[in-house]
Amino acid sequence: MHILVLGGAGMVGRKFIERLARDGGLGGKAIAKVTAQDVFPASAPANAPFAFEALTSDLSQPGEAEKLIAARPELIVHLAAIVSGEAEVDFDKGYRINLDGTRYLFDAIRLAGDGYKPRVIFTSSIAVFGAPFHDKIEDEFFTTPLTSYGTQKAIGELLLCDYSRRGFFDGVGIRLPTICVRPGAPNKAASGFFSNIIREPLNGQEAVLPVSEQVRHWHASPRSAVGFLIHAATMDTSLIGPRRALTMPGYSCTVAEQIEALRKVAGENVVKRIKRVPDPVIDGIVAGWPRNFDARRAPALGFTAESSFEEIIRVHIDDELGGKFVA
Amino acid sequence: MHILVLGGAGMVGRKFIERLARDGGLGGKAIAKVTAQDVFPASAPANAPFAFEALTSDLSQPGEAEKLIAARPELIVHLAAIVSGEAEVDFDKGYRINLDGTRYLFDAIRLAGDGYKPRVIFTSSIAVFGAPFHDKIEDEFFTTPLTSYGTQKAIGELLLCDYSRRGFFDGVGIRLPTICVRPGAPNKAASGFFSNIIREPLNGQEAVLPVSEQVRHWHASPRSAVGFLIHAATMDTSLIGPRRALTMPGYSCTVAEQIEALRKVAGENVVKRIKRVPDPVIDGIVAGWPRNFDARRAPALGFTAESSFEEIIRVHIDDELGGKFVA
Repeated sequence: MHILVLGGAGMVGRKFIERLARDGGLGGKAIAKVTAQDVFPASAPANAPFAFEALTSDLSQPGEAEKLIAARPELIVHLAAIVSGEAEVDFDKGYRINLDGTRYLFDAIRLAGDGYKPRVIFTSSIAVFGAPFHDKIEDEFFTTPLTSYGTQKAIGELLLCDYSRRGFFDGVGIRLPTICVRPGAPNKAASGFFSNIIREPLNGQEAVLPVSEQVRHWHASPRSAVGFLIHAATMDTSLIGPRRALTMPGYSCTVAEQIEALRKVAGENVVKRIKRVPDPVIDGIVAGWPRNFDARRAPALGFTAESSFEEIIRVHIDDELGGKFVA
Repeated sequence: MHILVLGGAGMVGRKFIERLARDGGLGGKAIAKVTAQDVFPASAPANAPFAFEALTSDLSQPGEAEKLIAARPELIVHLAAIVSGEAEVDFDKGYRINLDGTRYLFDAIRLAGDGYKPRVIFTSSIAVFGAPFHDKIEDEFFTTPLTSYGTQKAIGELLLCDYSRRGFFDGVGIRLPTICVRPGAPNKAASGFFSNIIREPLNGQEAVLPVSEQVRHWHASPRSAVGFLIHAATMDTSLIGPRRALTMPGYSCTVAEQIEALRKVAGENVVKRIKRVPDPVIDGIVAGWPRNFDARRAPALGFTAESSFEEIIRVHIDDELGGKFVA
């Protein structure tokens, strides 16, 4: 099979392709080729048993989507997006890429005209929800985003459902939790501290905690994010019905519980590297974020995530640090 | 003030403009001009104390929205839409007019660049909901449309909220109940019988009831629909918050209750003109429609509708039949 990954140079896209290279197949099928599209070149996975192609293009330019599907990939994983902060600062760019780009893709598939009907995985976000909401957001709670990014993702979900209902493709929308622990350098995103306070101390570095330890949030590891994609790519979609946007499972905990998990996994010395530097601006932003979910449909459909924050930390140590950390 | 009505030649648009002509003003302000845009020419209201302009144009053509707002109307009532059945049959046309047309309008306002910030009323529909749903759909229930029309309306609501949140205009989204009793000739829409079984018998004509008398649905009169627009145009929008798509109040009743109300208002002879001709296709379509709502926000914000079906019938007799019917 041929797999197209839009946004294939990003963190989740890269890990997904690496997983495909390790697994050598998907859902019992051999993979002939993986095409990774992004605005900058994706690097090839190590030891891939399939052809790998990195394409740089801008999905939001008319005609690009048609080129991307010209080879009729059986699976399309659509991870390409302008992130929340940038979509808020640059209104036009956010709508052009997150909304128009998605429509170009969906319409290119619809208009292929040769019976083409790929599986399409659309990554959405818990940013489709906006405060006030219930302490545990149910699967049937309404989407009232408070960012342009969340609006664009909610619209993408609606389009995915309608295009699937009309039979143009076989879509699965997955709303990702905050992915934690993100590898790489400390992130300036408002959500960055959730990862920073784990990753940096394990690396022997100090990290800043800008919010109260009572802040509660919804997490899953990068390994789980890849697992969601694999499951969405291989599941029996006849079980989903027309409501194809699914809140993925995750683990809800407070920052205090994150720190306690770090203490258990890595010890007091590591925890001491977390410095409290309250930032009322970040505190205010985070206060508007979902804290917990009562996500029932996705687990019932076979999606799984971590069931403790210790597990999330251990995934990071295994997958990013080769099993070791700076004690 | 200058008021622009998009879809101004349709039933609700026409009645709204006639109401403005009778009232002579809106929210205590004098009306200088009303522009009615549609794909066919709107007729002028009788005895209007304001200038009236009928424009024919296609909002879904690039550049048309800019022309429509060139005079910077303070109030824009956006009723223009391809209806449900047609949007389902002609996928491209539905998206072009209901989604692209709406975006052209919203973006033209956003890009005006001279501090222009009109009140924008967007008429949505209970078609944003798709079965299965609760017997009474709450204000926080999710929108999972099962038609392309409902999808386009749900997307319009999301855009309206985001553009309002960003300060580009002051939007109010109103989800209309099924408008009953619709004046005019019997309608072939699946929902047409709700009006036909009242309007035709009052006119001395037979009408066909294609579904079970146990079918329950959600109604408001054309007079209430106009009242929703007037209230949305004049209300204090600082009370709404960012969730600007509101399920309008309505009256929920079964077809049996509709018929009983007709009996009370008009007598047994009129009721006898309803013929039962079961149509399993229409029965199936109607089974997927909302039956009732627990709409709390809109009434709390001052929107009102009828509180009995007898009242809905009397509104029809008063407004359309000059107070008389064929007994």
